[in-house]
Amino acid sequence: MSDYNAPLKDMQFVLTELAGLAQVSALPGYAEATPDVIEAILEESGKFTRDVLAPLNFSGDQEGAQWADKVVTMPQGFKEAYAQFVGNGWNALSGNPEFGGQGLPKVVSAVVQEMWQSANMSFSLCPMLTMGGIEALELYGSEEQKATYLHHMVSGRWTGTMNLTESQAGSDLAAVRTRAVPQGDGTYKLFGQKIFITYGDHDMAENTIHLVLARTPDAPAGVKGISLFVVPKFLVNADGTPGARNDVYAVSIEHKLGIHASPTCVMAYGDNGGAVGTLVGKENDGLKYMFVMMNAARYAVGLEGLALGERAYQQALGFARERVQSRAIEGSVSSVPIIRHPDIRRMLLLMRSQNEAMRAVAYVVAAALDSAMRHPDADERIRQQAFVDLMIPVVKAWLTETGNEVTSLGVQIHGGMGFIEETGAAQHFRDARITTIYEGTTGIQALDLIGRKVARDGGAALNALLGQMKETQASVAKQSGASFKALAAALHDGIEAVTTAGDYIVTNYAKDVRAVAVGAVPFLRLLGIVSGGWMMARAALAAQAKIVSGDTDSFYPAKINTAHFYADHVMVATIGLAKEVVQGGASALALDDAHF
Amino acid sequence: MSDYNAPLKDMQFVLTELAGLAQVSALPGYAEATPDVIEAILEESGKFTRDVLAPLNFSGDQEGAQWADKVVTMPQGFKEAYAQFVGNGWNALSGNPEFGGQGLPKVVSAVVQEMWQSANMSFSLCPMLTMGGIEALELYGSEEQKATYLHHMVSGRWTGTMNLTESQAGSDLAAVRTRAVPQGDGTYKLFGQKIFITYGDHDMAENTIHLVLARTPDAPAGVKGISLFVVPKFLVNADGTPGARNDVYAVSIEHKLGIHASPTCVMAYGDNGGAVGTLVGKENDGLKYMFVMMNAARYAVGLEGLALGERAYQQALGFARERVQSRAIEGSVSSVPIIRHPDIRRMLLLMRSQNEAMRAVAYVVAAALDSAMRHPDADERIRQQAFVDLMIPVVKAWLTETGNEVTSLGVQIHGGMGFIEETGAAQHFRDARITTIYEGTTGIQALDLIGRKVARDGGAALNALLGQMKETQASVAKQSGASFKALAAALHDGIEAVTTAGDYIVTNYAKDVRAVAVGAVPFLRLLGIVSGGWMMARAALAAQAKIVSGDTDSFYPAKINTAHFYADHVMVATIGLAKEVVQGGASALALDDAHF
Repeated sequence: MSDYNAPLKDMQFVLTELAGLAQVSALPGYAEATPDVIEAILEESGKFTRDVLAPLNFSGDQEGAQWADKVVTMPQGFKEAYAQFVGNGWNALSGNPEFGGQGLPKVVSAVVQEMWQSANMSFSLCPMLTMGGIEALELYGSEEQKATYLHHMVSGRWTGTMNLTESQAGSDLAAVRTRAVPQGDGTYKLFGQKIFITYGDHDMAENTIHLVLARTPDAPAGVKGISLFVVPKFLVNADGTPGARNDVYAVSIEHKLGIHASPTCVMAYGDNGGAVGTLVGKENDGLKYMFVMMNAARYAVGLEGLALGERAYQQALGFARERVQSRAIEGSVSSVPIIRHPDIRRMLLLMRSQNEAMRAVAYVVAAALDSAMRHPDADERIRQQAFVDLMIPVVKAWLTETGNEVTSLGVQIHGGMGFIEETGAAQHFRDARITTIYEGTTGIQALDLIGRKVARDGGAALNALLGQMKETQASVAKQSGASFKALAAALHDGIEAVTTAGDYIVTNYAKDVRAVAVGAVPFLRLLGIVSGGWMMARAALAAQAKIVSGDTDSFYPAKINTAHFYADHVMVATIGLAKEVVQGGASALALDDAHF
Repeated sequence: MSDYNAPLKDMQFVLTELAGLAQVSALPGYAEATPDVIEAILEESGKFTRDVLAPLNFSGDQEGAQWADKVVTMPQGFKEAYAQFVGNGWNALSGNPEFGGQGLPKVVSAVVQEMWQSANMSFSLCPMLTMGGIEALELYGSEEQKATYLHHMVSGRWTGTMNLTESQAGSDLAAVRTRAVPQGDGTYKLFGQKIFITYGDHDMAENTIHLVLARTPDAPAGVKGISLFVVPKFLVNADGTPGARNDVYAVSIEHKLGIHASPTCVMAYGDNGGAVGTLVGKENDGLKYMFVMMNAARYAVGLEGLALGERAYQQALGFARERVQSRAIEGSVSSVPIIRHPDIRRMLLLMRSQNEAMRAVAYVVAAALDSAMRHPDADERIRQQAFVDLMIPVVKAWLTETGNEVTSLGVQIHGGMGFIEETGAAQHFRDARITTIYEGTTGIQALDLIGRKVARDGGAALNALLGQMKETQASVAKQSGASFKALAAALHDGIEAVTTAGDYIVTNYAKDVRAVAVGAVPFLRLLGIVSGGWMMARAALAAQAKIVSGDTDSFYPAKINTAHFYADHVMVATIGLAKEVVQGGASALALDDAHF
């Protein structure tokens, strides 16, 4: 039960100073995204998330989504909030103007999405899944499918879902069994059961459009035989309106550790004759389509780590200012607000500095996504895409792992009150716990990182990134003062650690992939911490430039201080992590299965 | 919904090889605690916890303790299990024979307590609190109080509670306001409200004996005016049986993140004329009594971190063996059990190696407690007590912080199923979250460590510990093989890190206590990790001796391997932590409160 106020100042700072908003606005098609327009949008979004979404976060958790007779009912207030969300055009923000969207850059929609997630993570999952569906149909759908679905999905009047997982197949899509039987009229009938389907059913929209992985009768085994289908909850009439109920139902919802207001459904396809769907793209190409969509989904989940960290920080900070307990350790006449206690400050700054580092990494990657899609220079597009591909697993896994740590610190700062659900700090901690799991666990992200992103190109993309980091390090080393000295040293060590660990991975991946894979998660964590440090160093340099130019806003010295803290308290882990990557393979693999 | 099987083999190994059970048995008064007797007790305890307590863990969490009309009702099965617990004599295990206890060494009761906590943490809190009450009365109670309460509390027919916290006073006992008014007949009437009272009311016992901190009318302000009272739920008749209901009631219970089956009560004293109590010891000496009892309580809570880690490991290991998903990264014909995947092994070994390190540290400290109380040589008692005092905050805070990490890994290994409450992995994670908070947060333990335990004696106790660690390191360095090489190097670095950080604390504590306090928690974590590494090194040496002597049990090479893993994956953090302690003060304190 806490308020949420979007951290507009830091958001704007990162957009302008680190993510290069001006350059993004200059990309073809983004001409209308001027800094003024964007500032106005972010301010409005801040109000909407503060006044409409955030107040439903705690009540939504307590009440939870309810299921009865194959129908999901959302907690009180969600339906009305969603109507307002759609009515105000928030769902259409990043959508293609061709289908009624506002076509704003990815980097802007990322900021707004962070606000939705901070304000109400359970709510935010509905538009997130819809975006996945939009992307699938826009990229691979037929003209008829686009005409049928996209306008309504971009507006948000219809929502989307992604149906991948089956009980025997968690992240292993080769094991998908759902069947799709062609009917000879261009449609298919689907039969099977999907689990963990977010917003598989709910009462906020007129229709729900399911994207479903299934196998056609003659499909080859394994991942090469998976096709993608679109299956609406209500079949669409010739006039475009929702018509007959399709044979797809939520047959239960899960009782989960967190995100209680987000219905996680078991979906039954075809229990009453077959769920009617149409093929997206070509048969047996489903996995390819999923992979293309994966970047966006993984990015969005990564952002949740930051968003929950920010919400937890705001709540913990409020508590630390108000809660008066114990005298100061150096002596004080009476008890002091706990923000005065050094360990509370340490925890607050661990939360804050990591949030700021996460935000900077996330927005810079979003801006690179914009450039990768729209930059006029083809080589630059390739460079930017390589950076994005390298960083997506880092955004997904490092931000969410850190979000878990930050929300846990939020509980800790509350002391005993943190363990009481009424306080609301525990909710952020519970909600965060899914983020390192869904959309590919941290382990899966880390394997993607070391295999497809580092070893496959012989470390080229990683070295390009290290080159940029070294440039920043050199600039930092030229500055004076204790903060820049600490940052320069920490960044130096961090770059060296990533270099050592990266070289080990590139050299040994083919030779001894199991030993290298033991270090996958430590390497991802290492790269995340150092990327965050690189961003904090860039932020400190930008802040210093403002100070030198005569700007007296206290935001800038605070930013330098926070970067200094990050160097002292977060980046100290880098050398140890590199050791873990390089040395840790053998001892993790020596034990016989039977001796565990 | 998982089974629990006490890890008897590791427990026995640690007892025998590391905690010196033979020497403990040789202490005055422990003659009956022969290795054979203890082995039999542990086996019986293993069966009882497996068959009676563990099956109620999940159902107790789901149902939760219920409150209505000032009465708490426990979840189904708890009352019967408690009756069996008392009937079998488990509650009396460590009790003084004078009051019907079995007088077993602390190190043995610690092992049994770990089992209770692993099997059913919520249940285990009831006897834990009773033990606190027993200790208070045995040490400071009058003969009459002892005669009235102790037999029944030692048997467990009556349970105990500790009433410290009030809503305006979390860990700050100076702020206690509950009043105790002398009635002229040797009794007092108590008036006030206490919060967070574990098992403040329940239906498992005939009577509940509350130990309560309160102020007499003329008491000085602050901690110097706190007295300790004993207040029974039912006043005790002259014949020793429970009589009239006393004026103390549970007026509500909390809705918590975890330990749902453990009722956390708000207790109202004196709403109907005054709760009758008697003074324990002397007026205004209450804080002194609390401090003496604190070691035992903090030790017991520390053990919870290990216990939940063990339970989580057993469940995750079972899942990792059974769950078949995805092919092996080096290639395999079909999907494999996930225990084959390197990152799953890494997580399992992070759980296992840290559990083993925690267990060794915990039991060794318990054995030192026994020696500190009973060793015939006074100097040895002082030495052992100094070690215990130094290590208690480490046991409390490092074990519980690590328990949080280990239970979180347990969730992660389960993937999506880990987030579903039905799986049961999330319960351990939720239950663990209180352990770093109650009985003094991690921050409070760390301040105790750097102030009273390290700075106050100029680092003497710490240096004595480091001396022991160096001896072990020298022995390890003499062994051959990759595992011992890794252990020797890691222990060398760890000892150096503790030395550097400890010197910094001793040198700067008086000069700049706020900066030193910033490093308190990192220092505690550092000392915990290195103490664990020291123990794993000792364990590896003991295992090697067994192997050399011809013992072919696979337990011993596995132990060496696990120690090696701990060196590679846990101890790598030590150098960074020392840096954080030494360098991190300024950047955590520079920011103005207003600029957070």
